[in-house]
Amino acid sequence: MTEVALFGAGRIGTIHAGNVASQPGVKLKYIVDVDRAAAAKLAGQHGAQTADAEAVFDDSAIAAVVIGSSTDTHADLILRAAKARKAIFCEKPVDLELDRARACAEAVQSSGVVCLIGFQRRYDPTFAAIKARITQGEIGKPEMLIVTSRDPGAPPVDYIKRSGGIFKDMLIHDFDVFRWIMEDEAATVYATGSCLTDQAIAAAGDIDATAVTIRTRGGRLAQINTIRRAVYGYDQRFEVLGSKGMLQAGNHRPTEVTLWSSGAITADKPEYFFLERYRAAYQMEMAHFVDAITNGKPVRTTIEDGIKALELADAATTSWREQRIVKL
Amino acid sequence: MTEVALFGAGRIGTIHAGNVASQPGVKLKYIVDVDRAAAAKLAGQHGAQTADAEAVFDDSAIAAVVIGSSTDTHADLILRAAKARKAIFCEKPVDLELDRARACAEAVQSSGVVCLIGFQRRYDPTFAAIKARITQGEIGKPEMLIVTSRDPGAPPVDYIKRSGGIFKDMLIHDFDVFRWIMEDEAATVYATGSCLTDQAIAAAGDIDATAVTIRTRGGRLAQINTIRRAVYGYDQRFEVLGSKGMLQAGNHRPTEVTLWSSGAITADKPEYFFLERYRAAYQMEMAHFVDAITNGKPVRTTIEDGIKALELADAATTSWREQRIVKL
Amino acid sequence: MTEVALFGAGRIGTIHAGNVASQPGVKLKYIVDVDRAAAAKLAGQHGAQTADAEAVFDDSAIAAVVIGSSTDTHADLILRAAKARKAIFCEKPVDLELDRARACAEAVQSSGVVCLIGFQRRYDPTFAAIKARITQGEIGKPEMLIVTSRDPGAPPVDYIKRSGGIFKDMLIHDFDVFRWIMEDEAATVYATGSCLTDQAIAAAGDIDATAVTIRTRGGRLAQINTIRRAVYGYDQRFEVLGSKGMLQAGNHRPTEVTLWSSGAITADKPEYFFLERYRAAYQMEMAHFVDAITNGKPVRTTIEDGIKALELADAATTSWREQRIVKL
Amino acid sequence: MTEVALFGAGRIGTIHAGNVASQPGVKLKYIVDVDRAAAAKLAGQHGAQTADAEAVFDDSAIAAVVIGSSTDTHADLILRAAKARKAIFCEKPVDLELDRARACAEAVQSSGVVCLIGFQRRYDPTFAAIKARITQGEIGKPEMLIVTSRDPGAPPVDYIKRSGGIFKDMLIHDFDVFRWIMEDEAATVYATGSCLTDQAIAAAGDIDATAVTIRTRGGRLAQINTIRRAVYGYDQRFEVLGSKGMLQAGNHRPTEVTLWSSGAITADKPEYFFLERYRAAYQMEMAHFVDAITNGKPVRTTIEDGIKALELADAATTSWREQRIVKL
Repeated sequence: MTEVALFGAGRIGTIHAGNVASQPGVKLKYIVDVDRAAAAKLAGQHGAQTADAEAVFDDSAIAAVVIGSSTDTHADLILRAAKARKAIFCEKPVDLELDRARACAEAVQSSGVVCLIGFQRRYDPTFAAIKARITQGEIGKPEMLIVTSRDPGAPPVDYIKRSGGIFKDMLIHDFDVFRWIMEDEAATVYATGSCLTDQAIAAAGDIDATAVTIRTRGGRLAQINTIRRAVYGYDQRFEVLGSKGMLQAGNHRPTEVTLWSSGAITADKPEYFFLERYRAAYQMEMAHFVDAITNGKPVRTTIEDGIKALELADAATTSWREQRIVKL
Repeated sequence: MTEVALFGAGRIGTIHAGNVASQPGVKLKYIVDVDRAAAAKLAGQHGAQTADAEAVFDDSAIAAVVIGSSTDTHADLILRAAKARKAIFCEKPVDLELDRARACAEAVQSSGVVCLIGFQRRYDPTFAAIKARITQGEIGKPEMLIVTSRDPGAPPVDYIKRSGGIFKDMLIHDFDVFRWIMEDEAATVYATGSCLTDQAIAAAGDIDATAVTIRTRGGRLAQINTIRRAVYGYDQRFEVLGSKGMLQAGNHRPTEVTLWSSGAITADKPEYFFLERYRAAYQMEMAHFVDAITNGKPVRTTIEDGIKALELADAATTSWREQRIVKL
Repeated sequence: MTEVALFGAGRIGTIHAGNVASQPGVKLKYIVDVDRAAAAKLAGQHGAQTADAEAVFDDSAIAAVVIGSSTDTHADLILRAAKARKAIFCEKPVDLELDRARACAEAVQSSGVVCLIGFQRRYDPTFAAIKARITQGEIGKPEMLIVTSRDPGAPPVDYIKRSGGIFKDMLIHDFDVFRWIMEDEAATVYATGSCLTDQAIAAAGDIDATAVTIRTRGGRLAQINTIRRAVYGYDQRFEVLGSKGMLQAGNHRPTEVTLWSSGAITADKPEYFFLERYRAAYQMEMAHFVDAITNGKPVRTTIEDGIKALELADAATTSWREQRIVKL
Repeated sequence: MTEVALFGAGRIGTIHAGNVASQPGVKLKYIVDVDRAAAAKLAGQHGAQTADAEAVFDDSAIAAVVIGSSTDTHADLILRAAKARKAIFCEKPVDLELDRARACAEAVQSSGVVCLIGFQRRYDPTFAAIKARITQGEIGKPEMLIVTSRDPGAPPVDYIKRSGGIFKDMLIHDFDVFRWIMEDEAATVYATGSCLTDQAIAAAGDIDATAVTIRTRGGRLAQINTIRRAVYGYDQRFEVLGSKGMLQAGNHRPTEVTLWSSGAITADKPEYFFLERYRAAYQMEMAHFVDAITNGKPVRTTIEDGIKALELADAATTSWREQRIVKL
């Protein structure tokens, strides 16, 4: 039995707990959270026990840790896990600061532990099928990428203040998708944006709508548009145009019901938010992590990917703030 | 210049007038209607003149007549046109009575005039593309046909009383589509139905919803469902399943707009009714007729097709009334 | 802990084993199969043990049995379970013979045990949403139902010989959907069909393609079309037209990828077959069963539903064989 | 009868000739083209005569001119028409140089003639329906616009050399759509691009793929992506997100046929190119022009719109060439 500890008993921790528990040959042993009641409740559901971080790192039976606690704890937990030679599954971002994130990457590299960063979109059935079909040459060379990435509603302003800004909090996933799909690195980044939905976000020094353009070293083009509030829901689409065709990722819907009424033909809105939309992706991601730690398979979303996405988020933030094109 | 006379200045006559007038090398000379004001108005729009039937058949310059007047006038006008050796474009049905329809077919055959019956659906871009792709072998041998044929609302009960019943009035088009697409003749017909939308229709001895099943000589199966009132509009779809695939004809919509709202994703309802849905079909049909009379091309919807569809309508009516399976 | 025994370690048994095991508060204790190796393998995956039927019924700790073994074992196991006062989850059909099925229903009724028949489609997210929306009045009174129910390929002829024929084997689900959606009982049934895909099926006395029409007591109409082999896959659609609108159940697809190529715009085929298409339905169905046995919730797919669907299958078989309309 | 002269007997001239000829109360009198054979052929089809420009402007019976000749002739013809007090329908662009275009606008203004610039997309049923629904408040305030505008293949390099570059030649339509839909003017423009499909285009000093971002004075965001060659065809989509919903313009397709094959579900590619895609738009545009000259209705696409779109094209060209954000 591979024994695993989970940090974080909130929304995403709850998802990961279920996915760890359902892996054959894996035992969810500890759940750690500053909110002890939440940890105890989640532990109870999966026959696990609560613990503090020290107990986890001291337990030599623990093979891996899953870090789903708040962003400001990530770097510390990664460093301690690397030192204790535990495999690491860590939610994005590695850290809000590039320096600390790079220090984590170095620690991971020198200790040699398996480390997966939670870019779950790469494991989504629709997104992964597109990647596979590109790899098989179905659309030739990718030339343009258009990403639409919109949330159904903004988080509380308190969250936004600690989030590192929209580019690190929200677009970091899109930057990772860009690198993964285009298989090319950014040469220039241009970002603009506005606060369109709630002026409290502007007051907090952030924006809620962005338009980003990346030109790659190979001259390929990518555009990303984001907003914190799309009234019709969580919109997660992209299109990649290649020399031989285009592949398009559509939204997933709760049902395949269509209503033909006296007014219009209507279909379901997209799956409500990321927990619903990426349910299968989170399962596949955890299965991949277990595969990596038990069978030595190389990890598909590395800490280096985490650094690279953060670099793009930093560049975009600079472009927006300084109103200039940023070269990388 | 090929000179043409049009009988009927109503809804369908107006469509045909426009389509005749826009054919290069064709002159719309006369418009005949018992409603002289309607005839005069339509004639004015196209630089034509009004006339009575006798004048049309006596004018040796007239090469063709287009019959879009009421059903009870069709047989008489066909017989007179055949005698006067004018090419004939006649709206369906040939007649409500098979005997009279067959007499028309004989007259057409012995006079040798071109005669096209207005099964306009065969000229529709979507329907015609399906036929062409079947002919090219794209789905192998057609095995099953499912037809959904629904009107947005019932006509006045007075019309229904003179219509010959739902099978001759409404399903005659679907019977023709069946024969055309399946390239096989009916062995048995079963029809049932109900009066679901307006009891005045039942009082008039008719029904407003039907379910028809045809088994062909070759064992292929077809199902047709109809209703006089679908609140979402004019529904004109069919699916033909073959040994190698299925071809599906979807509805046409006025625009390709989609609204993503807080409630649902919504698209346009289908084109409102037959004049809108088959606008292109009526144009292609008239162009084909002109091609037939000027270049000797064989007509694609013959009076024999009109007879065959009427036979199926008769069989379905009998099946419904007598609650039995009818063998042909 | 509610302890459960499973009969059958084949395809559907494997699905049910996983779904039982993942229910909180439920223990999958025994797996019974004549193929002991299969039983042992499946038991190993879920920490269960193999047993024979007698041991199951003798174990007073067993609260429920899940019957996923071959059809000819269903009636006997239902009778024994009813006698032993175990709750019953049994795959459809109850039995191929109405008499035996009715005897089972009586035994269930007199023992008072919970009994769920596995019409999983009622638990499917798309189908269940349609039912809920009809109940909420969204389309008014249901008037017409069109069901398309097609398999990707025929089973071996040996299976077909023991299957009870296409109406009991394949359409029994569609007959249940008809009753559930239309909330009305059949007045007449007409069925025709052909052997279109493999003459070995005809030699076995069966057909592989059917067209069924049901007229209800209330005059509503239903048409069902089926085929054993649709080259594009497992096609599970229906449309229910009501006085105020139509609800349409579309197929589910593995991904939401669309390819825009130089030839066409292409999307995924439907989910491969019933195990994939109804994955979520099987999960919901088991959760509902556990809810029924632990919380006393009334079962949504009863043995009476199983009898009614079988009666329709019998009527359809008679209609087809005797080429007549069957009154119920 | 309103008498009209047409300049240009090429592709677009042929379209306009048909649309002028089919307007009731309008006579297509002259066709002018340096290719006299082409002019004669087109004139023959519509009962018009060939002429030279001087004859047109000298004929006091001519009420309007339609300018569909090459771009370098536009300004001169507009100036002469304004002087001769003929109403003007001129294809975009007014001119490749802003100065000359502004001189034309002044001439039009001082002469007071009706002048419509051929931004036909505003007359397209799908695009116009979106504008109308925005105006009705269906999506609240427009906040983001995403335009996908792709051609099926690049024109000859000779054409490209004289075209004024991709921003003036191809994106000018998209800039007009931006202004029309967002009802706001650009504050900043950023454009980047590459030569991805044919290096001869780069050698000619142009690019074939662009990514443009506009931020409006009101802080709204627009992204436009273009390419000269999309192998799947002419792609003309946009999405406008507002505070209450999103409206999406999809492509139009030749038919509504879907093929369900053993490999995939496939639908038609978009209408082949602009002549097919905007067939209805060109008709509506001409009807609107005739309405303007005969009934005094204000023109919906004015020469000022032509100037504004050209200013955006100039700004985008500068942004791309100088690799900087351009403020307007």
